[in-house]
Amino acid sequence: MNHISASVITIGDELLIGQVIDTNSAWVGKALNNIGVWVKHRIAVGDKWDDIWNALEEEQKIADIIIITGGLGPTADDITKPLLNKYFKGNLVTDEAALQNVQQIFSRYNRPMLESNYKQAEVPDTCTVIQNARGTAPGMQFEQDGKLFYSLPGVPYEMQGMMETYILPELKKRFTLSPILHRTMTTCGLGESFLAERIKDFESSLPQNIKLAYLPGATIVRLRLTEQLYENNQSKIDAYFMQLQRLIPEIIITNKDISIAEAIAELLLQKNKTIATAESCTGGYIAHLLTAIPGASKYFYGSVVSYDNTIKENVLNVKKETLEKYSAVSEEVVIEMANNILDIMHVDYSIAVSGILGPEGGTAEKPVGTVWVAVANKSAIKTQKFSFRYNREKNMEATANNAFNLLHLLIKEVS
Amino acid sequence: MNHISASVITIGDELLIGQVIDTNSAWVGKALNNIGVWVKHRIAVGDKWDDIWNALEEEQKIADIIIITGGLGPTADDITKPLLNKYFKGNLVTDEAALQNVQQIFSRYNRPMLESNYKQAEVPDTCTVIQNARGTAPGMQFEQDGKLFYSLPGVPYEMQGMMETYILPELKKRFTLSPILHRTMTTCGLGESFLAERIKDFESSLPQNIKLAYLPGATIVRLRLTEQLYENNQSKIDAYFMQLQRLIPEIIITNKDISIAEAIAELLLQKNKTIATAESCTGGYIAHLLTAIPGASKYFYGSVVSYDNTIKENVLNVKKETLEKYSAVSEEVVIEMANNILDIMHVDYSIAVSGILGPEGGTAEKPVGTVWVAVANKSAIKTQKFSFRYNREKNMEATANNAFNLLHLLIKEVS
Repeated sequence: MNHISASVITIGDELLIGQVIDTNSAWVGKALNNIGVWVKHRIAVGDKWDDIWNALEEEQKIADIIIITGGLGPTADDITKPLLNKYFKGNLVTDEAALQNVQQIFSRYNRPMLESNYKQAEVPDTCTVIQNARGTAPGMQFEQDGKLFYSLPGVPYEMQGMMETYILPELKKRFTLSPILHRTMTTCGLGESFLAERIKDFESSLPQNIKLAYLPGATIVRLRLTEQLYENNQSKIDAYFMQLQRLIPEIIITNKDISIAEAIAELLLQKNKTIATAESCTGGYIAHLLTAIPGASKYFYGSVVSYDNTIKENVLNVKKETLEKYSAVSEEVVIEMANNILDIMHVDYSIAVSGILGPEGGTAEKPVGTVWVAVANKSAIKTQKFSFRYNREKNMEATANNAFNLLHLLIKEVS
Repeated sequence: MNHISASVITIGDELLIGQVIDTNSAWVGKALNNIGVWVKHRIAVGDKWDDIWNALEEEQKIADIIIITGGLGPTADDITKPLLNKYFKGNLVTDEAALQNVQQIFSRYNRPMLESNYKQAEVPDTCTVIQNARGTAPGMQFEQDGKLFYSLPGVPYEMQGMMETYILPELKKRFTLSPILHRTMTTCGLGESFLAERIKDFESSLPQNIKLAYLPGATIVRLRLTEQLYENNQSKIDAYFMQLQRLIPEIIITNKDISIAEAIAELLLQKNKTIATAESCTGGYIAHLLTAIPGASKYFYGSVVSYDNTIKENVLNVKKETLEKYSAVSEEVVIEMANNILDIMHVDYSIAVSGILGPEGGTAEKPVGTVWVAVANKSAIKTQKFSFRYNREKNMEATANNAFNLLHLLIKEVS
């Protein structure tokens, strides 16, 4: 059984100057890790000939598989293909299947083909072509000195398609891979160092091939166990993962590697319940997190985003007196929001939030970061006040995390 | 004037296995680029002693400044500090200011301090300490062989604070930097290769020190000009940027490096107009994009997310007959949604969307990717039908982009 390692090279000036966040290498890392390939290195270089060339030489020294994304577009700043052609000593030739693919895409959109589009079907004759079912640029596989190289487009959707249909199956065929197992849970309510203190005996009892990692987020901490499984070893990760869960049962939101929104969705589906949200400061973010999940229509009915106070009054039917007496950011207002949205949308559960996320809008009495959350069903309601001290973006994330956590507690209590 | 280059090393297994998307290096890249430091390399390594050590040695060879993020937490998987202590031949000593900071944070939350928290205030005596106003782990600055090293926490909010208050000012003080200028615009409506064809003469007319880059997104393409300015050179980027804008005026949404949502927000603020959204398939995503922007309450009033058809009828007052005759994903329904939300929320402009984003829910007549969009004000309405061919996530992004583009056209027309 081999220990196979990979390097991911992402190409593009936009990655280095921070104009684009690199989601490709995370996706590739996860996909490779799932089949037992350990990603050792990730590197990003600009659209510069020498930098790309050097990266290829360097990564080839340390990894068995080199995945390259980006720089395959039809425009002049895309230099990956000519570079690989030279690096692997080939000649550019037109690939018939790739050309047909480009032609089909253009005829589908009723567009004339340009010279640059014809060129997209050209590939080095030293590569194995990977067809692109989702775009015009074909992928390429090269082999040299016992190393495998894959060049893929930077467009995530196209890159993912080729990984799934060609590269992952190909790697599984070529190598006998020793699995890397992960178990992840998400906790809410205890800071990283207190959590570490509570489970320190557990941590020091772990065998050498199982590692514990802490992944802190906005008021949440994810815990991950990773087991490297060698020949003839029997996996022990599930036993340790169970042990860990028993140490901190009251703060676990989910014992799967899924988002908190996905954990809530699972719970609602399992209990056949529906939900709606009434959001002020989160501005639709909680609804978005729930509807980003495929199949959300089975449990999510809708939301009223009441950013302006007139909407709280006119659409959510919050009493004018309540708003005037307690102001929008108050327990009284989120209680009315949470109860009223249950009636308006005829759902089983609701989340309501009102707060000040910043940077403006804070007062001495209610500083930036003050947030009230209420979660309700027909017979019960839970409320909680928070004082977050992050920036706007992270205050919003922390609000969503804690609203889901509170709802999780309510659902667990009533069932 | 010096040409100063930087490398960014991000540390953490979670980055390599794809559990966390690395937003830090993009942020750091942008911040350094803004002050004229060119990020040459970005590299991610796992929580492994040798890999981190080798990365330091390698990056030190090619860059003047090395920024390291991650691995400074209080738990056992955080090995950056002992490693740097050894790499820079120091001894760990308690930093009084850092200790006070940790103590203050714990007394603020009324929590007892643990041994691991006291340890967070320890630093190598070979570094200059960078205080952390947003968390417990101090940052560190090292100098060796004429190179500068900065070690920062992986938590983005803490890392950003130290970059802004200490590192960026420090670098500006130490180096006379030759500026790197960027100008970015966002276009919608023309594919990358057609756009390239239309501006190819412009592209080949660019001087050597100005580069054009294409950044394609979900049905949008951003165009970026980058100018490297050397001593005594006068900048020409603005003249070229103006020229480029004159070539493709009808497809430009914004000529700034901002999101499309931010461009819409600017336009609304400038014209003193308000907006609301009525969203079905986007599930609050458009409202979220608008409210993620600080100060959104000046133009954004609210949203009704009508995921379930009963909400379209009962809250958005879409006629039962319209829903029955044309079905939810239709021009007739989005017209009613767009017009009705104007009345419900008393706003100047509205966006309404209804569609099938997938992976489930498509039919032969209305396959996955079919989306209707309407944008309206009191006197005009524009509608458009789209047939996207991406996955759920990218279909949602494309819907939002095109809804904003359509609204942009409407606002431009009426004014």
